Amino acid sequence: MAKIKKQNFSDWYLNNILEAELISYAPAKGSIVFRPYGYKIWEKLQFYLDKEIKALGVENSYFPLLIPESFLKKEKEHFEGFTPEVAVVTYAGGEELKEKLVIRPTSETIMYYYFSEWIRSYRDLPFLVNQWANVIRWEKRPFPFIRNTEFLWQEGHTAHSSHKESSKFALKILSLYEKVYKEIALIYGILGKKSQSERFAGALDTYTYEILLPDGKALQGCTSHDLGQNFSKVFNIRFQDKDKKLKYVWQTSWGFSSRSLGAIVAVHGDDDGLVLPPKLAPFKIVAIPIYDKSYNNNLIDNYLKLLKETFNEDIIIDKSEQSVGYKFNKWDLKGVPLRIEVGSKEVKSNILTCFRRDSRERFKISLEDFKNSLEDILADIQDNLFKRSKNFVEKNTWEVKSYNDFKKTIFSKRGFIKAFWCQNQECELKIKEETKATTRCLPLDSKEEKGRCIYCNKPSKFRWIFAQSY
Amino acid sequence: MAKIKKQNFSDWYLNNILEAELISYAPAKGSIVFRPYGYKIWEKLQFYLDKEIKALGVENSYFPLLIPESFLKKEKEHFEGFTPEVAVVTYAGGEELKEKLVIRPTSETIMYYYFSEWIRSYRDLPFLVNQWANVIRWEKRPFPFIRNTEFLWQEGHTAHSSHKESSKFALKILSLYEKVYKEIALIYGILGKKSQSERFAGALDTYTYEILLPDGKALQGCTSHDLGQNFSKVFNIRFQDKDKKLKYVWQTSWGFSSRSLGAIVAVHGDDDGLVLPPKLAPFKIVAIPIYDKSYNNNLIDNYLKLLKETFNEDIIIDKSEQSVGYKFNKWDLKGVPLRIEVGSKEVKSNILTCFRRDSRERFKISLEDFKNSLEDILADIQDNLFKRSKNFVEKNTWEVKSYNDFKKTIFSKRGFIKAFWCQNQECELKIKEETKATTRCLPLDSKEEKGRCIYCNKPSKFRWIFAQSY
Repeated sequence: MAKIKKQNFSDWYLNNILEAELISYAPAKGSIVFRPYGYKIWEKLQFYLDKEIKALGVENSYFPLLIPESFLKKEKEHFEGFTPEVAVVTYAGGEELKEKLVIRPTSETIMYYYFSEWIRSYRDLPFLVNQWANVIRWEKRPFPFIRNTEFLWQEGHTAHSSHKESSKFALKILSLYEKVYKEIALIYGILGKKSQSERFAGALDTYTYEILLPDGKALQGCTSHDLGQNFSKVFNIRFQDKDKKLKYVWQTSWGFSSRSLGAIVAVHGDDDGLVLPPKLAPFKIVAIPIYDKSYNNNLIDNYLKLLKETFNEDIIIDKSEQSVGYKFNKWDLKGVPLRIEVGSKEVKSNILTCFRRDSRERFKISLEDFKNSLEDILADIQDNLFKRSKNFVEKNTWEVKSYNDFKKTIFSKRGFIKAFWCQNQECELKIKEETKATTRCLPLDSKEEKGRCIYCNKPSKFRWIFAQSY
Repeated sequence: MAKIKKQNFSDWYLNNILEAELISYAPAKGSIVFRPYGYKIWEKLQFYLDKEIKALGVENSYFPLLIPESFLKKEKEHFEGFTPEVAVVTYAGGEELKEKLVIRPTSETIMYYYFSEWIRSYRDLPFLVNQWANVIRWEKRPFPFIRNTEFLWQEGHTAHSSHKESSKFALKILSLYEKVYKEIALIYGILGKKSQSERFAGALDTYTYEILLPDGKALQGCTSHDLGQNFSKVFNIRFQDKDKKLKYVWQTSWGFSSRSLGAIVAVHGDDDGLVLPPKLAPFKIVAIPIYDKSYNNNLIDNYLKLLKETFNEDIIIDKSEQSVGYKFNKWDLKGVPLRIEVGSKEVKSNILTCFRRDSRERFKISLEDFKNSLEDILADIQDNLFKRSKNFVEKNTWEVKSYNDFKKTIFSKRGFIKAFWCQNQECELKIKEETKATTRCLPLDSKEEKGRCIYCNKPSKFRWIFAQSY
């Protein structure tokens, strides 16, 4: 059943991730199965990101899933932030546990316990680790990929000898995430800093890449936290500096999760289904034979064989028994960037009939030209998808001058709203109560201006981004 | 503090995995942290195995961590086998759960629930999936890597249209595991089939690669299960065959875990620490500068730079402030296959002083020769390690003719004991009670003979492998 993306985004989304076989719903509330087609996209993202993370000198490791409750309690703000969301193991091995064990919602507390053991001297710094892991946060309103009780992510954690270095590192990671979103996932977003009430529980500052979904709601694409010395003081992570003095380390933590798959589906898809970015598509090309009773179909099969040999892992040949129309719909739905049709005409003239999933253009091309221009075609698809994403954000970003304007926009069109805000939490809270819009971020490229808070009219220096959000 | 491997294997092992920085102990009982040096070895194993699994047409996926208790209960034998070991989540999101959720000890029950949804026709078969995941089994006597409450593994699960095909697949996977152990981990072991009482809870047959640790105790290196239709009947996984009839699928499941890291440490190490197989060592070569006050040490640094450029990721240069002796010990302990020492003599004559960790041979070699023969040297190290491992097993495998002999051997020397057994569970149980030795497997290359059960003296056709085990 076709769903119209613009009319009902949420139905369209839920329908498509199931029909494209990205996920199945799991029995435990808010949890999903990553089916092979969905997991392949995650593996590709992981591959890019892991290489880049390692290139920064960060080493992979693996910390325990279960965290003693007392660890979580050590940093008060952190504990209060996560307690409502945790899943708790109370018995194991047939016995009630003396101390409850929490399934990690994030790993600061368990990791930093070890940091205090491993870090002794300035020579041990910077200390840079990452892990690829599953985490659990008990979501009240789950939404597949976007808000799952269990999700997959990488979480990086670092310790440095100065705040200058650690805050620089938090931003370096933000740039890396930006690169992955812009160059691989082809999703335009806004780099910014969170307000104090929206930052990570226990952080000094949280940086984000804010994405806009088709229904005009914002999605936090990832986060990188400047933790200052909040955790090092609680976990007693100290190093002897060159001056022989014992000092607390400065820390960062940062995460990129399977939520990004939701953004990819949501941002690029159309009424025919998914439209996958070429670098993340499990297959770049699908070839569909169009057999013809009046033709020697062995010649078509031979041509397909040749294509398989030429394009290897990039191509999938669909020789299943279904009808051609069924296959066209199926692979459209699955978002494969290029479809090539191979019938008697194509074989006879040594050409391909090609279909671009993003633009829905159909064209004929010789096999030789296709081989030579494949990289260019894919690059063009990339450009097109990214431009579309950027256009959408630009068209749905509104500068408002009055609170009335603000409300009118949020209730009629949603989107990103740029407005002066005095950075007083009371105004932020009132706006949230009255419009469901929260501060998403202060864009990193913001310039100081002279303005007045949209809510209280007090002098304000910066325009913040507000939006309703996932 | 040096530990003598032969005198006290367990002390030696525990000491070395900590000192080589493979792990730290975790606060929750029986759990460990995989530190970067340890995790790198696991990543390398994962890399090889993942590629081979995919080459068999198996696709990666990811299923939920939490399994409703009712799912686990569906296959009675499976439930009874795993219930004593599970960790249970009883509340989450601040509320007591209506149905308890079990942290996966293995994923048959959650995966097969979906198999019944996804598999409809013979066209969907074979259905081949795998996942890389963490699992929890609450071990009463935990031992790092070997028996952790939380461990990392891959678990593959397949469905086929015939028993012939599924049992063949279970054995194909066993061969793959054998290849990884023999060619990558360089650990000799025995391929075999488990007895009915030692097989996986819910399987028809379990295949194993049995390893012998230095203390003469056996370690199950991995398992591949022929599940028959036990689970498909319980989870109602049926397909419409070509003859239009609905039939239950035939299944396999198979796992290779981070336990293998324990085997690698245990089998290859010596009194100086770890000895890592070249294909799994985080670094193949460590270069240590030997500075000399009477020499221009910039020349040494330049030489090191040249080495780094030549060997890239394969080499680590240790320019830390510690003494040369300290560094030698450190990298010996960490098991790096080759050490090269670079002092004024080496720079002047454009040579390297080289040290092989496995054989403790030292030799001088020109840089040019070293470059050209590196592959050969590493291959020679591989051969040597595998031969040592094989020799050890052969020297510690005993054919016994009487139960007295059996007991004498198990109490004095341990090792693998080959003995006729009638395949009656009562004899197996008695032997276990009296000697702590269990049947490890019936080697796949066993030939039918005429013999008598070591315990009851009844006619028996095959010699089984018995051992005390981890």
